[in-house]
Amino acid sequence: MEKLGIHAFVWTGSSAASDLEAAMEKSHALGYRLIEFPRLDPTKFDIAWLAGRLREFELGVVVTMGLPFDADISSEDAAVVQRGRAMLHDAVAVTRDLGGGKLGGIIFSAHGKYPAPPTRRGWDNSVGVLTGLAETARAAGVTLNLEVVNRFESNVLNTTAQGLAFIRDTGMDNIYLHLDTFHMNIEEADPAQAIRACGDRLGYFHIGESNRGFLGSGTVDFPATFDALVEAGYDDFVTFESFSSEVVDRDLSITCGIWRNTWTDNVAVARHAKSYIEERFAEARRKAVAARTP
Amino acid sequence: MEKLGIHAFVWTGSSAASDLEAAMEKSHALGYRLIEFPRLDPTKFDIAWLAGRLREFELGVVVTMGLPFDADISSEDAAVVQRGRAMLHDAVAVTRDLGGGKLGGIIFSAHGKYPAPPTRRGWDNSVGVLTGLAETARAAGVTLNLEVVNRFESNVLNTTAQGLAFIRDTGMDNIYLHLDTFHMNIEEADPAQAIRACGDRLGYFHIGESNRGFLGSGTVDFPATFDALVEAGYDDFVTFESFSSEVVDRDLSITCGIWRNTWTDNVAVARHAKSYIEERFAEARRKAVAARTP
Amino acid sequence: MEKLGIHAFVWTGSSAASDLEAAMEKSHALGYRLIEFPRLDPTKFDIAWLAGRLREFELGVVVTMGLPFDADISSEDAAVVQRGRAMLHDAVAVTRDLGGGKLGGIIFSAHGKYPAPPTRRGWDNSVGVLTGLAETARAAGVTLNLEVVNRFESNVLNTTAQGLAFIRDTGMDNIYLHLDTFHMNIEEADPAQAIRACGDRLGYFHIGESNRGFLGSGTVDFPATFDALVEAGYDDFVTFESFSSEVVDRDLSITCGIWRNTWTDNVAVARHAKSYIEERFAEARRKAVAARTP
Amino acid sequence: MEKLGIHAFVWTGSSAASDLEAAMEKSHALGYRLIEFPRLDPTKFDIAWLAGRLREFELGVVVTMGLPFDADISSEDAAVVQRGRAMLHDAVAVTRDLGGGKLGGIIFSAHGKYPAPPTRRGWDNSVGVLTGLAETARAAGVTLNLEVVNRFESNVLNTTAQGLAFIRDTGMDNIYLHLDTFHMNIEEADPAQAIRACGDRLGYFHIGESNRGFLGSGTVDFPATFDALVEAGYDDFVTFESFSSEVVDRDLSITCGIWRNTWTDNVAVARHAKSYIEERFAEARRKAVAARTP
Repeated sequence: MEKLGIHAFVWTGSSAASDLEAAMEKSHALGYRLIEFPRLDPTKFDIAWLAGRLREFELGVVVTMGLPFDADISSEDAAVVQRGRAMLHDAVAVTRDLGGGKLGGIIFSAHGKYPAPPTRRGWDNSVGVLTGLAETARAAGVTLNLEVVNRFESNVLNTTAQGLAFIRDTGMDNIYLHLDTFHMNIEEADPAQAIRACGDRLGYFHIGESNRGFLGSGTVDFPATFDALVEAGYDDFVTFESFSSEVVDRDLSITCGIWRNTWTDNVAVARHAKSYIEERFAEARRKAVAARTP
Repeated sequence: MEKLGIHAFVWTGSSAASDLEAAMEKSHALGYRLIEFPRLDPTKFDIAWLAGRLREFELGVVVTMGLPFDADISSEDAAVVQRGRAMLHDAVAVTRDLGGGKLGGIIFSAHGKYPAPPTRRGWDNSVGVLTGLAETARAAGVTLNLEVVNRFESNVLNTTAQGLAFIRDTGMDNIYLHLDTFHMNIEEADPAQAIRACGDRLGYFHIGESNRGFLGSGTVDFPATFDALVEAGYDDFVTFESFSSEVVDRDLSITCGIWRNTWTDNVAVARHAKSYIEERFAEARRKAVAARTP
Repeated sequence: MEKLGIHAFVWTGSSAASDLEAAMEKSHALGYRLIEFPRLDPTKFDIAWLAGRLREFELGVVVTMGLPFDADISSEDAAVVQRGRAMLHDAVAVTRDLGGGKLGGIIFSAHGKYPAPPTRRGWDNSVGVLTGLAETARAAGVTLNLEVVNRFESNVLNTTAQGLAFIRDTGMDNIYLHLDTFHMNIEEADPAQAIRACGDRLGYFHIGESNRGFLGSGTVDFPATFDALVEAGYDDFVTFESFSSEVVDRDLSITCGIWRNTWTDNVAVARHAKSYIEERFAEARRKAVAARTP
Repeated sequence: MEKLGIHAFVWTGSSAASDLEAAMEKSHALGYRLIEFPRLDPTKFDIAWLAGRLREFELGVVVTMGLPFDADISSEDAAVVQRGRAMLHDAVAVTRDLGGGKLGGIIFSAHGKYPAPPTRRGWDNSVGVLTGLAETARAAGVTLNLEVVNRFESNVLNTTAQGLAFIRDTGMDNIYLHLDTFHMNIEEADPAQAIRACGDRLGYFHIGESNRGFLGSGTVDFPATFDALVEAGYDDFVTFESFSSEVVDRDLSITCGIWRNTWTDNVAVARHAKSYIEERFAEARRKAVAARTP
């Protein structure tokens, strides 16, 4: 069985306990083995309770987040950077307390449409914060996974090559890239080549269609993607992500530009995704064997 | 020889006469037969002079624009809508005065990242303005071409199907769609199918790579695109568009999220694009003939 | 539920009753709704028995065949042509007696590697025989479906355009094309375009991978194939075909060049194919709806 | 400038001096830097003359051949094997005498449609002959390049994995694979993956379309092919190959099933191929740079 995860936003945009409970229950029932929580608001739920429910549902957990502009560690304003640093250290703690091993998302800049190009000083600030965060994360048993996103959602890391350069600048070995087919389809010269180039620096992977809808109903070349994951030897979790205006989180829906329904039935889209990913992965493995078998 | 155009932004983000002159000169020298001017600022140049130079360079012209948020005709605010209406009527006049036959771009909403979903009333306002504009445009010998763009650049028309519905709502026969491979690659379930579905409502076409760089260095399926253009019987202009941080317009660069250099030599990218488009078109025609020839 | 068929050769190369029984049983058990019998040898089994078992298993049936060189109706030798005509008339009768409505395969020439190019007189002979056969077939309630195959398996019909020209030459309206992804992948300039060009002349369809193995482990562009079937409005049976040296028929294995095992477990390959075809079809339908839905 | 070769069969199927002269002249004029001669009949021309003309045209040369069935070194008949061995040793000498460094083609079996599966003893015979031939070839400064072909043209080496196993069985380091996009499109689970798996065992490469016609008018995924060649670090010659019934060699046309015209103007197809290959290569290199450049 594949290491398949699902983004909680397929189920709910809420942090209320009852909504999280329903999300875990459905994820488990469909056979997913991990749930990703974005933008968890710890004032809205009890961490110990959530950690317990995750264990009871036998679900792994990944926490992802995107920094707000007023806590953007790629800012040139020290106070803004400091707010971001604090948020990230809190997020590492929450990840650990939930029993998770990965913090992912846009943790190196704000998540949103920037009004100006990136700056060298902003890059250095971000590298500095992540370097320190990585030390803290190591002690917490958490890895950091930088989500390379499209130009409309950050101006700092838009390509895998930029992400690898960022990691090199930190000099840390527990920072990885969090790649995502939706974003790669916009930014990479060749997504499959980028995955192979990323190699063992790939820490987490999002499977999403080009228009955020049903897998196979867009332009992402998924067979090439799964081939590359197999060739790169990636054997960690891949997580399905899909957004529709059917499920709304005020902030995330706006940031991601979710203006229309690509689906209305989230159980249908999640069930299809699981089958789609498992079969494409099996086909990629079969091809890899065929390529080596006389 | 193909009807090939080039977006002036490959050459310059400026409306200064000397920059426009250089852009026309290079476009002509490379064999392009049309130049597209986005966001022309008529206070910065002499329309009669520009119209004359276009004729002398034997260049057709298309004018495109994106409305600013304070003149967004999909707003619910009547004053804002009224400002947009005025801008659009001016743009039709400029297009006519330059000798152009097409006004394109995001002329149905603001061009930029919206902070909220579209509304029904905003749609109706936009339909209303375009209906009136189409009457004016007919008298001016100009067609209106609605550029269907990705979710981060408008919340009104993101797919061809939405664009066709919008045109139906206007009831006008001189409104067409302006499709663009960059945007379709993000939003359409199947770009080639969308082109065929658009059929004779296709009025103008942009060729751009998924990451705004060199054609062939991204994820757009260009062979399928050209096949679809041939199957749809499209025989009007296709215009090459590419953005790099090498050429900067304060507004457009920010709106389009141009944070990095995908090229530094604009002559090289324009020369390659011309050859690339002509050869792919020839191959598509050859395939179409082969499909009919026993 | 899709109209899915399976080629008996996934199960057996034999015409023995016990082998046919096992093939029908497994096809039915996996949810296929039709079985295709190639090269049935009517001296080896009881037609009435087989017809009864098909009904009991609720399986439709398609009969396919390839003419041998000594009964090649595209020959210039009248005696050879006459033998082919007789075989074909027998095959129509067998198809009818089994309860089938389609005769398919290489029924317009020999099935095999030709030692010389086709001739005009051979084409005319074949057209003549098929014209007469179509009259007989109509009376029997059977359609004729010409399988367009690659250059190594016939020299008469290698492309859809050739097949459509052949049908036009007969002037008959109950002759259709039987297209096959394996063959199209070798011969067509654009398989999807060929399917759309075939349109309502498409009578039967084979789904096979480029190397005859597992679907998805080769070079056939299946998403484009299913999109084209949906766009062409095809709603008749598609039949999965796969050959491995695991299942042997002396003649057919040699003609098709089955020299290696692409699989050993025919239940696994058949189960995967059913899921693969159904999901790709569902995705193609979903895309077609998306392309029309604002 | 790329290392681009062209197959003489684009120009002529003849070994007559005047035809070879014309082929060299046209190849040179179009900018090709190497010509491949298949099935050269040394009784029909003067080797010293041809070697001199190649030097004067500044053309490299590759000799390719396919063994006939009566000289099939994968036969179980010792006399047949012996005839093949003698032909191959002659071919090495001809290659050397022409100034060539590569002998390619189907030099491990007959070239044609086999009437039976391969045998273990035939494989061993072929391995034995090639092992000895490699010693001779080394002394002659010639490498051996085994052309992996589709099932209808040999039953011994149909996939890259089989070819690599064959080379391992010889234990020789001057035997390489000669891969070909036409054949790979039929047999490989993933042609690009096969090229990468072949790595430094790739000795020679044929660029041909799936239907033997114009590049880009078939189903071969050329961008993936060139990406893989760049990733594999291949920097030796790639040779364009295309067959049409316009140019006829009695044996080769029949073996390859050339029944129809995919082109009539060989200068046009050769000029297009050169541009096509050079541009796709440049795009692949640009992508590889982009994948590494932050």
